[in-house]
Amino acid sequence: MRLLFLGDMVGKTGRTAVWERLPGLISDLKLDFVVVNGENAAGGFGITEDIYLETINAGADVVTTGNHVWDQKEAVSFCERHDQFLRPANYPSGTPGKGSGVFYARNGARVLVANIMGRVFMHPELDDPFTSAEAILSACPLGEQADAIVFDFHAEATSEKQCFGHFVDGRASFVVGTHTHVPTADHQILNGGTAYMSDAGMCGDYDSSLGMDKEEPLNRFISKMPKGRFEAAHGPATICGVGVEISDRTGLAERIAPLRIGPRLTETIPDFWR
Amino acid sequence: MRLLFLGDMVGKTGRTAVWERLPGLISDLKLDFVVVNGENAAGGFGITEDIYLETINAGADVVTTGNHVWDQKEAVSFCERHDQFLRPANYPSGTPGKGSGVFYARNGARVLVANIMGRVFMHPELDDPFTSAEAILSACPLGEQADAIVFDFHAEATSEKQCFGHFVDGRASFVVGTHTHVPTADHQILNGGTAYMSDAGMCGDYDSSLGMDKEEPLNRFISKMPKGRFEAAHGPATICGVGVEISDRTGLAERIAPLRIGPRLTETIPDFWR
Amino acid sequence: MRLLFLGDMVGKTGRTAVWERLPGLISDLKLDFVVVNGENAAGGFGITEDIYLETINAGADVVTTGNHVWDQKEAVSFCERHDQFLRPANYPSGTPGKGSGVFYARNGARVLVANIMGRVFMHPELDDPFTSAEAILSACPLGEQADAIVFDFHAEATSEKQCFGHFVDGRASFVVGTHTHVPTADHQILNGGTAYMSDAGMCGDYDSSLGMDKEEPLNRFISKMPKGRFEAAHGPATICGVGVEISDRTGLAERIAPLRIGPRLTETIPDFWR
Amino acid sequence: MRLLFLGDMVGKTGRTAVWERLPGLISDLKLDFVVVNGENAAGGFGITEDIYLETINAGADVVTTGNHVWDQKEAVSFCERHDQFLRPANYPSGTPGKGSGVFYARNGARVLVANIMGRVFMHPELDDPFTSAEAILSACPLGEQADAIVFDFHAEATSEKQCFGHFVDGRASFVVGTHTHVPTADHQILNGGTAYMSDAGMCGDYDSSLGMDKEEPLNRFISKMPKGRFEAAHGPATICGVGVEISDRTGLAERIAPLRIGPRLTETIPDFWR
Ligand SMILES: [Fe+2]
Ligand SMILES: [Fe+2]
Ligand SMILES: [Fe+2]
Ligand SMILES: [Fe+2]
Ligand SMILES: [Fe+2]
Ligand SMILES: [Fe+2]
Ligand SMILES: [Fe+2]
Ligand SMILES: [Fe+2]
Repeated sequence: MRLLFLGDMVGKTGRTAVWERLPGLISDLKLDFVVVNGENAAGGFGITEDIYLETINAGADVVTTGNHVWDQKEAVSFCERHDQFLRPANYPSGTPGKGSGVFYARNGARVLVANIMGRVFMHPELDDPFTSAEAILSACPLGEQADAIVFDFHAEATSEKQCFGHFVDGRASFVVGTHTHVPTADHQILNGGTAYMSDAGMCGDYDSSLGMDKEEPLNRFISKMPKGRFEAAHGPATICGVGVEISDRTGLAERIAPLRIGPRLTETIPDFWR
Repeated sequence: MRLLFLGDMVGKTGRTAVWERLPGLISDLKLDFVVVNGENAAGGFGITEDIYLETINAGADVVTTGNHVWDQKEAVSFCERHDQFLRPANYPSGTPGKGSGVFYARNGARVLVANIMGRVFMHPELDDPFTSAEAILSACPLGEQADAIVFDFHAEATSEKQCFGHFVDGRASFVVGTHTHVPTADHQILNGGTAYMSDAGMCGDYDSSLGMDKEEPLNRFISKMPKGRFEAAHGPATICGVGVEISDRTGLAERIAPLRIGPRLTETIPDFWR
Repeated sequence: MRLLFLGDMVGKTGRTAVWERLPGLISDLKLDFVVVNGENAAGGFGITEDIYLETINAGADVVTTGNHVWDQKEAVSFCERHDQFLRPANYPSGTPGKGSGVFYARNGARVLVANIMGRVFMHPELDDPFTSAEAILSACPLGEQADAIVFDFHAEATSEKQCFGHFVDGRASFVVGTHTHVPTADHQILNGGTAYMSDAGMCGDYDSSLGMDKEEPLNRFISKMPKGRFEAAHGPATICGVGVEISDRTGLAERIAPLRIGPRLTETIPDFWR
Repeated sequence: MRLLFLGDMVGKTGRTAVWERLPGLISDLKLDFVVVNGENAAGGFGITEDIYLETINAGADVVTTGNHVWDQKEAVSFCERHDQFLRPANYPSGTPGKGSGVFYARNGARVLVANIMGRVFMHPELDDPFTSAEAILSACPLGEQADAIVFDFHAEATSEKQCFGHFVDGRASFVVGTHTHVPTADHQILNGGTAYMSDAGMCGDYDSSLGMDKEEPLNRFISKMPKGRFEAAHGPATICGVGVEISDRTGLAERIAPLRIGPRLTETIPDFWR
């Protein structure tokens, strides 16, 4: 099974690039399942219902999010209406929306996707991501109710990301980090068979600070005073993601490689899909 | 001019891999200058004088460090005796050792190397890294007292790293991040001609948590209680670094590409050096 | 019912002062119940079994702790043997020891004591303190299984402390903060009848940095480099705590006032007990 | 010399209480000098020019601030026009306004007032508060260009506050902390003669979370999702501050005691002024 994950879409340039390229990628690469993180799709801050719908239209099977999920007020309500929208699972019970779900891939496989947030340097008041993952895996184990299991682990610290990967190693198909907006080159298949990559990077303008226009962030580092607002950068976007080949038999990963398309970073397509 | 930077050596497996491979890399790739970060070389915590000397013997021109610089007590004294050893420049005045220096490359070029630490999520009590860089660049501008300028920016947050890159863009040859122990795939040449990469990754065992044996870090995430000590992992190391081709004329970067050698990550050598 | 809470005993000077003065206070003030925080009693770092036992001998009904609970390795085992020892309740299930318990006061009242840790600026990986408190209160509500309920809320941020107070207001007799080692003067009875004080302060040497010898902490703020170790200060201790008069009928608070005995701070005894 | 310091005015209720009571306090207590922290005077966020002027009219000799100084955009410009307005001194050079100044007290004494911000848990990117204080004290030493020296040290962590106190002990008349909005009871005269208190508390409604309406802060702790905005509480305010008697001869402190007037906390006036 061929699964593609695309990192945080940032602003108009990021989401437009995904909308334009994703349909072609799905048909060219014969993708069975696509997950896209959309937490920064609306000008860098959250996601609107229209953007969500357009991303699903472009071929995403699931849209995940992260700490920016509620930046657009409407997310609090539309998250309840759309089955393919995930917010981090480790919000407390009673939070609108859901953090995981089982979805059907184009090849008929049942894919459990879970969106979990890290806490280190991030969002200490969320529930324990490890406990949260354990509950999700217990309720729907790989090889039983799920043919593949994917975690979008939205976190800052590489230690927490790597430990999370080891924690679910052998019990999930794929763990991919998001949130730093920088793609890492440490993709590997862990000892137990789980594909792992610390961060997928973002889909956005890499001539920027995390996809945001660099002027104000740089100003704040230098002057320590706000001058303007944070706005999404609007140069051409580079799409960053990662492709994983998942065994139909075991649900574990067979291959993992990055996908990058755009002007700023080294372009690459998983060679096992070419 | 051909410059190679290698990320944080972690533990015995990391430093041994560097010592074994670096001499061959220098001759095979005709390297003019090599910088190695050594802050975790002694069992994950700091660096001893012997390890420093062995690293210089293996061909490093400069050894940089980071937040772990003082973990081995002896560093406080030996840092004063060795010219090619750098601690972060933004420690307060009066701190032993030095944070930057000008060194001669094999091709005769004067290379300014500076080691600076970020503050976000890290070490808030250090001096401002941006002010610190400004002072270093003013005292020794590119094209005047320096033919090449390299910053090892030891930091956690990608926002701070990227803003730092933009801050010195056009005034330095190369900014490379260290500290997360995960190589990033965002190497690029910024608009002003400075080569940039958010993190070089580590030289260590990538079947681990940041190069440390994963058992105790994972235990702490799960049980929230210490059980044992943090120890360096001892599986085979992957060397992670980055190569930059610097213009002899302008001191700015012409090419940048990662270098990775070892069993866990995708191996690669800058193709412009093959 | 007369309840006395004493803040974190720090080092030998702090614990000795408590052991010497507590028996007299209990008889002079006719105290029904005494809780003492002991997380820094062993040289500033954790607590040993001997210190725990001596504190119980001196008249404490319960010893609470905080983030330093496991600093002395032996705590991991002795916490299981001693009924009157509490570690923070919001450690994950499976953690040795317990975070709350019901104890009998000298007047026969059943006193529920719970030790909970805040997360802001502190210990993000613990379970949600608010959820944790809710579970404790549901299992043993005031006026049903408990005649009085006391929370030692061990936390850094005043916002989290105050919100915690409001959260249990009317459902607990008393919320007292610990951890900052500085007594606050904001004791009051909240609208619902719960006595509240942001921090009890410590029992230790107030010519110090948080009860620790001030030389090394000050050195680190100035030089940013470790020079020596952190050691408890050894000047004469000031005992800091707070007294609460709890209604035998409702279990809510009728009076609250600080208690401070020692050379450095303004001495005071709750006037309603004189 | 009689100096009164009042903690952060929060919102309309806080500033109004100060405006109403300060003139009477100045005449009744024969105050020579008054400093008021105004960083939350405008609805909890920053301060406007009108509020500043009214506070000066009410008798404040200096208005200090903190991390909220720039919340109201107009502060960036009016800070330049008003001599008695201070922002934290450890903003980088080039920041509008000033962080310290020498002012004349009613008794003719020259009073150096400096506003400095801590960094721990706060604002890591500011300049080192200790270095900043050193520079201020060197330029204008006690007993030479200044007859009294007061620091408003705006910080979160009690360790940083206490170490700051020890750092300037014997070289300043008075160090008072602000920012936690909770008055502490640890006022004392340090060994070298400097009066010290970890936090002055706020002038605001103490039936709140830090002076803000408690509903939204509590909601965020419970639900982890924003529901509304943060708004200043509007119940009756308690004025919190501290009085210091400073020797006309040495500039060091002779007496220190809190001042609290209002409905929620125990009222008190320095007894040496009665
Ligand atoms: Fe993001
Ligand atoms: Fe994020
Ligand atoms: Fe490192
Ligand atoms: Fe580091
Ligand atoms: Fe403590
Ligand atoms: Fe503590
Ligand atoms: Fe404030
Ligand atoms: Fe503040």
